Amino acid sequence: MSEAAQTLDGWYSLHDFRTMDWVSWKQLPSDEREKAIAEFLHIVSKWNDTEAANAGSHAIYSIVGQKADIMFMILRPTMEELNEIENEFNKTKLAEYMVPAYSYVSVVELSNYLPAGENPYENPQIMARLKPILPKMNHVCFYPMDKRRNGEDNWYMLSMEDRKAMMYSHGKIGRQYAGKVRQIITGSVGFDDYEWGVTLFADDVLQFKKLVYEMRFDEVSARFGEFGSFFVGNILPVEKVAKFLEI
Amino acid sequence: MSEAAQTLDGWYSLHDFRTMDWVSWKQLPSDEREKAIAEFLHIVSKWNDTEAANAGSHAIYSIVGQKADIMFMILRPTMEELNEIENEFNKTKLAEYMVPAYSYVSVVELSNYLPAGENPYENPQIMARLKPILPKMNHVCFYPMDKRRNGEDNWYMLSMEDRKAMMYSHGKIGRQYAGKVRQIITGSVGFDDYEWGVTLFADDVLQFKKLVYEMRFDEVSARFGEFGSFFVGNILPVEKVAKFLEI
Amino acid sequence: MSEAAQTLDGWYSLHDFRTMDWVSWKQLPSDEREKAIAEFLHIVSKWNDTEAANAGSHAIYSIVGQKADIMFMILRPTMEELNEIENEFNKTKLAEYMVPAYSYVSVVELSNYLPAGENPYENPQIMARLKPILPKMNHVCFYPMDKRRNGEDNWYMLSMEDRKAMMYSHGKIGRQYAGKVRQIITGSVGFDDYEWGVTLFADDVLQFKKLVYEMRFDEVSARFGEFGSFFVGNILPVEKVAKFLEI
Amino acid sequence: MSEAAQTLDGWYSLHDFRTMDWVSWKQLPSDEREKAIAEFLHIVSKWNDTEAANAGSHAIYSIVGQKADIMFMILRPTMEELNEIENEFNKTKLAEYMVPAYSYVSVVELSNYLPAGENPYENPQIMARLKPILPKMNHVCFYPMDKRRNGEDNWYMLSMEDRKAMMYSHGKIGRQYAGKVRQIITGSVGFDDYEWGVTLFADDVLQFKKLVYEMRFDEVSARFGEFGSFFVGNILPVEKVAKFLEI
Amino acid sequence: MSEAAQTLDGWYSLHDFRTMDWVSWKQLPSDEREKAIAEFLHIVSKWNDTEAANAGSHAIYSIVGQKADIMFMILRPTMEELNEIENEFNKTKLAEYMVPAYSYVSVVELSNYLPAGENPYENPQIMARLKPILPKMNHVCFYPMDKRRNGEDNWYMLSMEDRKAMMYSHGKIGRQYAGKVRQIITGSVGFDDYEWGVTLFADDVLQFKKLVYEMRFDEVSARFGEFGSFFVGNILPVEKVAKFLEI
Repeated sequence: MSEAAQTLDGWYSLHDFRTMDWVSWKQLPSDEREKAIAEFLHIVSKWNDTEAANAGSHAIYSIVGQKADIMFMILRPTMEELNEIENEFNKTKLAEYMVPAYSYVSVVELSNYLPAGENPYENPQIMARLKPILPKMNHVCFYPMDKRRNGEDNWYMLSMEDRKAMMYSHGKIGRQYAGKVRQIITGSVGFDDYEWGVTLFADDVLQFKKLVYEMRFDEVSARFGEFGSFFVGNILPVEKVAKFLEI
Repeated sequence: MSEAAQTLDGWYSLHDFRTMDWVSWKQLPSDEREKAIAEFLHIVSKWNDTEAANAGSHAIYSIVGQKADIMFMILRPTMEELNEIENEFNKTKLAEYMVPAYSYVSVVELSNYLPAGENPYENPQIMARLKPILPKMNHVCFYPMDKRRNGEDNWYMLSMEDRKAMMYSHGKIGRQYAGKVRQIITGSVGFDDYEWGVTLFADDVLQFKKLVYEMRFDEVSARFGEFGSFFVGNILPVEKVAKFLEI
Repeated sequence: MSEAAQTLDGWYSLHDFRTMDWVSWKQLPSDEREKAIAEFLHIVSKWNDTEAANAGSHAIYSIVGQKADIMFMILRPTMEELNEIENEFNKTKLAEYMVPAYSYVSVVELSNYLPAGENPYENPQIMARLKPILPKMNHVCFYPMDKRRNGEDNWYMLSMEDRKAMMYSHGKIGRQYAGKVRQIITGSVGFDDYEWGVTLFADDVLQFKKLVYEMRFDEVSARFGEFGSFFVGNILPVEKVAKFLEI
Repeated sequence: MSEAAQTLDGWYSLHDFRTMDWVSWKQLPSDEREKAIAEFLHIVSKWNDTEAANAGSHAIYSIVGQKADIMFMILRPTMEELNEIENEFNKTKLAEYMVPAYSYVSVVELSNYLPAGENPYENPQIMARLKPILPKMNHVCFYPMDKRRNGEDNWYMLSMEDRKAMMYSHGKIGRQYAGKVRQIITGSVGFDDYEWGVTLFADDVLQFKKLVYEMRFDEVSARFGEFGSFFVGNILPVEKVAKFLEI
Repeated sequence: MSEAAQTLDGWYSLHDFRTMDWVSWKQLPSDEREKAIAEFLHIVSKWNDTEAANAGSHAIYSIVGQKADIMFMILRPTMEELNEIENEFNKTKLAEYMVPAYSYVSVVELSNYLPAGENPYENPQIMARLKPILPKMNHVCFYPMDKRRNGEDNWYMLSMEDRKAMMYSHGKIGRQYAGKVRQIITGSVGFDDYEWGVTLFADDVLQFKKLVYEMRFDEVSARFGEFGSFFVGNILPVEKVAKFLEI
């Protein structure tokens, strides 16, 4: 038996992808569309209040291609709040025109390699990373992933030492993109179909490709990475929602 | 030929996941919605009677994310009762607005390592585990799984001795979570697409992640576990059903 | 090149799984529902006549879980008859409310290990197994399967001798369930997506699990079995069809 | 780098599988159904003219099981003609009731092992096989397939000599079925998701199973064959189309 | 850790595949169909203006088979423009009748093996390949692909030298098709589910098959290529759009 890695866990996370049913949306009278948008913006303003109170965070991006039209990423201290938010949204008028496309349930996660003795949950820097205010950068990239367990390439049969060494090298690539790409790792073992979700934020969308491609040559990804679907999008600021939905 | 493990089998189990069709549900007049809820609560009260009579058990959870909105887990002494329950529910008004999302058919199962000579079906402790009253804990986690049969990693080609040793080590991890996570294993060979269903209950949802992640480093999971979809949810007490469905 | 096994082939088989569209069915006026049921029962009575004339057989089971609500298994001497039966059923009123869920096309098959010189098609015992009247036992289990062709585990690269020895051991397990489980093997190479269909009948549903689980430790299944979806169901006698469909 | 096999290529091929929407079809007034059938038969008569002029060929079969109800196989000299045929059909009344179920795009292909110096495209026997008039036999079997590229079992890394030897042995099995099974191979590398389509025609449907099963023990299939879905059907002569569609 | 390849990146690319909903389209009054076509042609004329201004490019092809009816390939300098184009199109009348079938998000990519010191983004030949005006050839072929990471066949664990040698040999095959097949490689690591999209253009559709088949025997494809779905189509010039949509 290999020694399990320790993790620190922060806010729970829901990625919620939706596809517009434009046909039905266009059939709605324009005053009802306006009411639906207003109702949605009211919900977003509540999310903003939560973020201002440091009791959660969220991000709204439009997704490129047919996989989805819009993504909400929501962070909250409890799984119950995530459930309430999705149920509240599902009951809105706008949700009648936003068909579920994909979702991901996870929790913000950090690997714990702090010196023994310190309580990481009292370290303000760590807490800021476990309960992050999501950046408002131009672009988002989301994908879920597993560590492979396949014959000779079985991550979970490696020694802790080997895993640490590989993750250290892996992390070095990430650090080269500091300032260009902000990365939020969420763990989803026991919560969703992959083991992790990776959410990247950048002002230059090409940095996603550069980072993920460079990492693919790193042993951790090359031998052990199994990737789900990739979603890429552009920020949708609240003041552009009406334009996005305009007919 | 490797020696087959012996199992003890108890109540049959149906996990039934549903997604609300909110669009249609909202179009229903509110008095009809109330009647639909009342009809559903009447069925639940019959389920409660069955549970009170120790003739079965059930659990109702709301599911986080788009995979489903609600999960019913139903335990009964016969497969016919499960079929009747699902058919009765399918004919209700509410079922018109709860689209099938996923289901799983299995039977509560214990591995039998009791000393020879004893009839386990006369052991009250074992019978209580084979015909369990489902806990009303805050959270549920469900996933189906197989033991891998792939080249060198073929569980079913191992000796009974090797399998026993690995399962013993595996069980030790589970026992570390005693009091935090309640685990119900149901066998589904011949009944559904995976070999087992795993249903976990916990008051602290993070314990699911900790348990499943720690187990993944254990050889049984690392080399031999093949996992299906994971569902995570929050308890939906009968008194909150109306609120959950409120428009 | 490995020597191909010889098979004896009997009646053609169609497994047809359907899911009730309860929403639409309930909207139908009750007299039209009654007419639809009567029309269906008339078809079943024709199937009964065919079975009485030993010119085919059929079985009707309700399926547990969301994969399907009902399964028809139809045996006939020709592929054309299967096609006519499915087309006739598809044109009925009831079929408008029974959405196709899954189907399987195959032919009753026996492995031929008879002494040379005998014509097996003149052996009445063999003919009875090739053109079987389906048992009316309480439960059914159906799954399709392949023999694996994967690296070292390639069934079709083994010698005839090795395959025979393994199948003999495999058959011994099956024979231990004689009287408890009736097994009908249908071959589907060239007809459907897997190589065989396995249909099991039993009065005690738990025997499916015991049989399939015990077989999984046998080398044929452990190293070479690739399984599709499993369906399990309860017998639906013709006199209970109306009740099953009752609103 | 392994030497690529040479191929001869003939008519382009479209396999088009459709599922009847019987519910909607039955709702159509009978005179409109008759008009829809007449319009379809008119298209078929144009296809017959093309076939009579040796400028293409086609076959119409009803498919057994739920994968599809009907299959059109269309051969034409250009990809543009295939596109026009499918677009013309899609605009007919009948197509409103024939939901797309599956399709396959390929080109009739022969392996070229002729002596150097001869121009195969001037050999009338070869041209007849590259531009075949499809047989009107009782049954059809279609499946797409790949040659495997997996570890040690990588067809495309073998020497030309090894591939030739295996294909020769493979071809011998096929030739044993001469007169019983007519086989048309179409190549689809660059055109569709598998590398080849295999279309078999036979008067005795059991010959499909015998042929494909026997071939599976041949090294080419055993080690290198990867198969897609199998479709099996019965011939639907033009004079039976009205009966097939009759309500 | 293996050394990552360097890439040059140009215009962003959206492949957008659609399936006509002919049933609904036919129900539209002919004057509304004409208006919908006019609105679409107006959008295309804007795309033409962009192409004339060298600020992007596009191609429109009809797809053979049921995977899709039409493909738009759009190149633009930014991801935001791609998003605006798809949103603008989604709001048109015609889009109500063109159901999303598949899409692919990527960026035009060249491998960078230029001598050090030179800035490739100042090389006009390279810039012309990174911001290409799409050819108006008769046929298109699109497929996404990965480089395999599987046991011994792990592209990302090879040395840069080995990869360069194999890619050089691979490129030689492509160059044999110069003048016959125009190839545009787009990178999609971090943007979509595969690592690359390959778009081929040719006047003779058979050249797609010849090129892709010949390459499959090359070690890069034979051992390391993992391919998604293949789409093949015929050019749909703007003056034929009305005919394509004519009822």
